[in-house]
Amino acid sequence: MNPLLFTSETSSNGLRERDFTVGEVPGVLWSPASGAAERAPLILMGHGGGNYKKHPAMAGRAQRLVTGCGFHVAVIDAPGHGDRPRTAYDEQEIDLMQEAMASGKPVGPIVVRYNDHLAELALPEWQATLDALQELPEIGAGGPVGWFGINMGTAIGVPFVAAEPRITAAVFGQHWPDTLAEKAKRITIPIQFAMQWDDEHIPREAGLALFDAFASQEKTLHANAGRHKELPRFEADSAVRFFARHFGPAVARPA
Amino acid sequence: MNPLLFTSETSSNGLRERDFTVGEVPGVLWSPASGAAERAPLILMGHGGGNYKKHPAMAGRAQRLVTGCGFHVAVIDAPGHGDRPRTAYDEQEIDLMQEAMASGKPVGPIVVRYNDHLAELALPEWQATLDALQELPEIGAGGPVGWFGINMGTAIGVPFVAAEPRITAAVFGQHWPDTLAEKAKRITIPIQFAMQWDDEHIPREAGLALFDAFASQEKTLHANAGRHKELPRFEADSAVRFFARHFGPAVARPA
Repeated sequence: MNPLLFTSETSSNGLRERDFTVGEVPGVLWSPASGAAERAPLILMGHGGGNYKKHPAMAGRAQRLVTGCGFHVAVIDAPGHGDRPRTAYDEQEIDLMQEAMASGKPVGPIVVRYNDHLAELALPEWQATLDALQELPEIGAGGPVGWFGINMGTAIGVPFVAAEPRITAAVFGQHWPDTLAEKAKRITIPIQFAMQWDDEHIPREAGLALFDAFASQEKTLHANAGRHKELPRFEADSAVRFFARHFGPAVARPA
Repeated sequence: MNPLLFTSETSSNGLRERDFTVGEVPGVLWSPASGAAERAPLILMGHGGGNYKKHPAMAGRAQRLVTGCGFHVAVIDAPGHGDRPRTAYDEQEIDLMQEAMASGKPVGPIVVRYNDHLAELALPEWQATLDALQELPEIGAGGPVGWFGINMGTAIGVPFVAAEPRITAAVFGQHWPDTLAEKAKRITIPIQFAMQWDDEHIPREAGLALFDAFASQEKTLHANAGRHKELPRFEADSAVRFFARHFGPAVARPA
């Protein structure tokens, strides 16, 4: 097993930020700046396509989860993203997506295919990362572990969560059912799912079909008016409360 | 104009509870036990069918809105409900609903027709109640006013809010689009809408169609797995946060 190696550490705003690697995969672990010795739940976050582990959306969610609930939050760069090299296949798919976007052609079939490929590579990376994170005394094995990933974070998260019994609550959203619905049918943990009611890329019926596919007894759909990129900021707070509800806030008051 | 007459007053758990009448209509006003002289937003709540103004669901929501946000909360008994007399027509429709429920026939057409009738009666009552409440110094005219009503509270609330420019944010849910969709199309204020994904009375497509009908630029659907009566308790907290987001919490921390 590849150990987790910390490569740098900073602290600000109550947030301890540690860069790490597990094998070739670079990641970041955000933790409460104080009380680092106490065990707390862990939230794994999957970033969006074209994005990276410390994108402001990731850092913002981490801030809420860490200072609001006292949780640990970890993100790794997806294959071909952030500090990781792109393959010729990555470049080709990205070109095709940009072409489709520019010419107004449907981008869905390309995103579905490319994200499915990335999910296959990412799944063992996430499993190794979770193994390594659970070796840390402040996380430990057997504690609550959540998944929080929208867009590509759902394309990677659904197969990962379907295969990973250590994850006991998850927030997903904004993807197509084509390759994911079959895996969603194997997921029975509580989930929350975000979609945009007027998504210009993901047809409404497709979003609803993916939500419908989850076998979870407790599942909640949050559909907001607006286009693909207009997911409201308050959905980040809502996700934090979802995890606080299931994992109990280490700190009583979510941000 | 019928004045608001207070008929009794009690206080407990930080909640001041005042029964009132406006003309023939009995109501209850819940307010913060302290700081009663300060103006605060007002939430009008519509109770469910077969229910009444001080039903535990109403009292529970009021507790959260008053002690969590410092808001005032008012509920009146709907026609034929609570302390109000039932007409022969009320009795007839209630019998038909109970018959349908008992025999497993669709209850929707009866509920839609009966609630539409009640909404017509309730609309001027709510307008008179709001007029009278805004005469109170701790509420006043021109301040934020919200509507919170699920089930029959939506059947009455949608026509009321469509006709009432003083209401600037609303929580609805769990009704049919048949007579309400046309009125929902005239509503442009921020709304949150709750439905049950496995509702045995309201078909999924009907719930989605009513949500779709609102013209609001900001609208959020919360769909939860479960049957009609299984609306999760956390949706009450979610509604409180919706109002806190729009009206600003008089107290910083929602319950």
